[in-house]
Amino acid sequence: MAVIPALREPVLAIHGGAGTIDPGSMTPAKERAYRDALVAALRSGQHVLSAGGSAVDAVIAAVVSLEDCPLFNAGRGAVFTSDGRNELDASIMDGATRAAGAVAGVTCIRNPIRAAHAVMTASRHVMLIGPGAEAFAAEKGLAKVEPAYFHTPERWAQLERARAEGRLELDHDGAAKSASATSDDKKFGTVGAVALDAHGNLAAATSTGGVTNKQWGRVGDSPIIGAGTWADNGTCAVSGTGLGEAFMRCCAAHEVASLMKYKGLPLDAAVTEVATITVPANHGTGGLIALDSAGNVSMRFSTTGMYRGVARGAGEPEVAIYGD
Amino acid sequence: MAVIPALREPVLAIHGGAGTIDPGSMTPAKERAYRDALVAALRSGQHVLSAGGSAVDAVIAAVVSLEDCPLFNAGRGAVFTSDGRNELDASIMDGATRAAGAVAGVTCIRNPIRAAHAVMTASRHVMLIGPGAEAFAAEKGLAKVEPAYFHTPERWAQLERARAEGRLELDHDGAAKSASATSDDKKFGTVGAVALDAHGNLAAATSTGGVTNKQWGRVGDSPIIGAGTWADNGTCAVSGTGLGEAFMRCCAAHEVASLMKYKGLPLDAAVTEVATITVPANHGTGGLIALDSAGNVSMRFSTTGMYRGVARGAGEPEVAIYGD
Repeated sequence: MAVIPALREPVLAIHGGAGTIDPGSMTPAKERAYRDALVAALRSGQHVLSAGGSAVDAVIAAVVSLEDCPLFNAGRGAVFTSDGRNELDASIMDGATRAAGAVAGVTCIRNPIRAAHAVMTASRHVMLIGPGAEAFAAEKGLAKVEPAYFHTPERWAQLERARAEGRLELDHDGAAKSASATSDDKKFGTVGAVALDAHGNLAAATSTGGVTNKQWGRVGDSPIIGAGTWADNGTCAVSGTGLGEAFMRCCAAHEVASLMKYKGLPLDAAVTEVATITVPANHGTGGLIALDSAGNVSMRFSTTGMYRGVARGAGEPEVAIYGD
Repeated sequence: MAVIPALREPVLAIHGGAGTIDPGSMTPAKERAYRDALVAALRSGQHVLSAGGSAVDAVIAAVVSLEDCPLFNAGRGAVFTSDGRNELDASIMDGATRAAGAVAGVTCIRNPIRAAHAVMTASRHVMLIGPGAEAFAAEKGLAKVEPAYFHTPERWAQLERARAEGRLELDHDGAAKSASATSDDKKFGTVGAVALDAHGNLAAATSTGGVTNKQWGRVGDSPIIGAGTWADNGTCAVSGTGLGEAFMRCCAAHEVASLMKYKGLPLDAAVTEVATITVPANHGTGGLIALDSAGNVSMRFSTTGMYRGVARGAGEPEVAIYGD
């Protein structure tokens, strides 16, 4: 008689970015919109998991939902570069196989996370960049969009504020020094998801529109396997959001896994150490969400808030914005 | 009375790529040319270190020497993409501060490692890609070259062989299956250096021309902090060479540091585990060079050879090509 492994209760966690998010600058209507968007993304992933789908497909479903929502800095809501374009980055990793895929500097792909997934499954590569990545995505039949798709009025206003003040880029410190920067300017809107499926497999995905007014083809941690994204069934699935440079200098996502695997820390202790000690020591702020194969979830940040949420099994999604 | 720390004996180690390198396909003249080039690169870095220069400046000097030599797949000797261009990647990390810089997909910068260094020291970013990275390098006054600079006859012949056989890219396995592929086709010519300076600081640098006949803006591990390059005074400096995708899937360079820091392995045990177990388990081959702050050097590979060398203090450089 074949041994059929017991199915587990699937778990999904997501984030929609961390930063200076304070209740004072949030209207009830706006907070409602964010909460609804987080719940919708969790339900998209939950739907996949409840039907016995894979963790990989669940994180894609959740991230696509966040990419399609103009509230978050990924996909549709991507911020503008200094020359008024949108450059998007994304990555995905399968904890069962450690297969991984990433794209960076793409401008016309509707859902960069789907392109990252195609790199993982339909190429022998891990990372494709720029026009080459777009040609690959077109060859695989992924949806293209015109630049106008990304032209949301809120993001254009952000670029104009940044340009007027000569801020070369928008990061937490720069924005904090700027009197006119709104709370929207003071957050990192990167989105991400981590999932555990009924078969015990983990996956992680991250997608971003970068930083407002960026120059020079800057790439942050979101498309970097080990910095912004990591998944390995033996330890955990991780997705980060924050000042990407700080996450890259400490290999933040892989550091969480290393602390678990070699130092023996439980998930939450590892995530807390990296989010609140290691990343700040590398001159940045932000947050991390992570999930281990026992279904434990940790969501820690060094900022005042992080859009986030968790859904277990068929249960009601729980979402949060500010600190505990 | 101020405490003046004792100066240490500086150490420099370099690699010029790993792969199927067998004595049978090597003429004495060719082997001599490789050995001379490795010695010249070691002397360039040694010169910096002997004068009290920093580990960062030493790895730049060594890598620039290898980039300028047409024998190695980096800088001048970069291989061709499928459309007959050259796309180069490089990264550098300062172990004293964990500052890091990287460029990917650049086509007209003479020494990509200098561009990576400029990103580290003259921008607030860690990674710049494509035309943006080139604009940044031009703004910083770095030397540009015409595409003809990279047109070495040997590399063009490699592309023609790869095209004729429909090999979409040149990796170890693909080349091994190809009857007409020469031994030059069967190696990863990425170059790298790790250094310990008299002040006790570590640094690492890696530079590559990618894989012959590559498509789609593929980026490997060389410009990825944590995969192909890592440096932290608390553990080690690491540079890798091999099938980049395998190094990315296991965060190879950062994994070496994690095994030392959290599992307590000595340098050589950590490097041996990653080069001969972890990377192959992630479906690739290659090698790693690494150096710790006590001056221990480890150079391990899962291929038949790796161009490599070490220089200690003002001593005679030692170079090697094949397995021990």
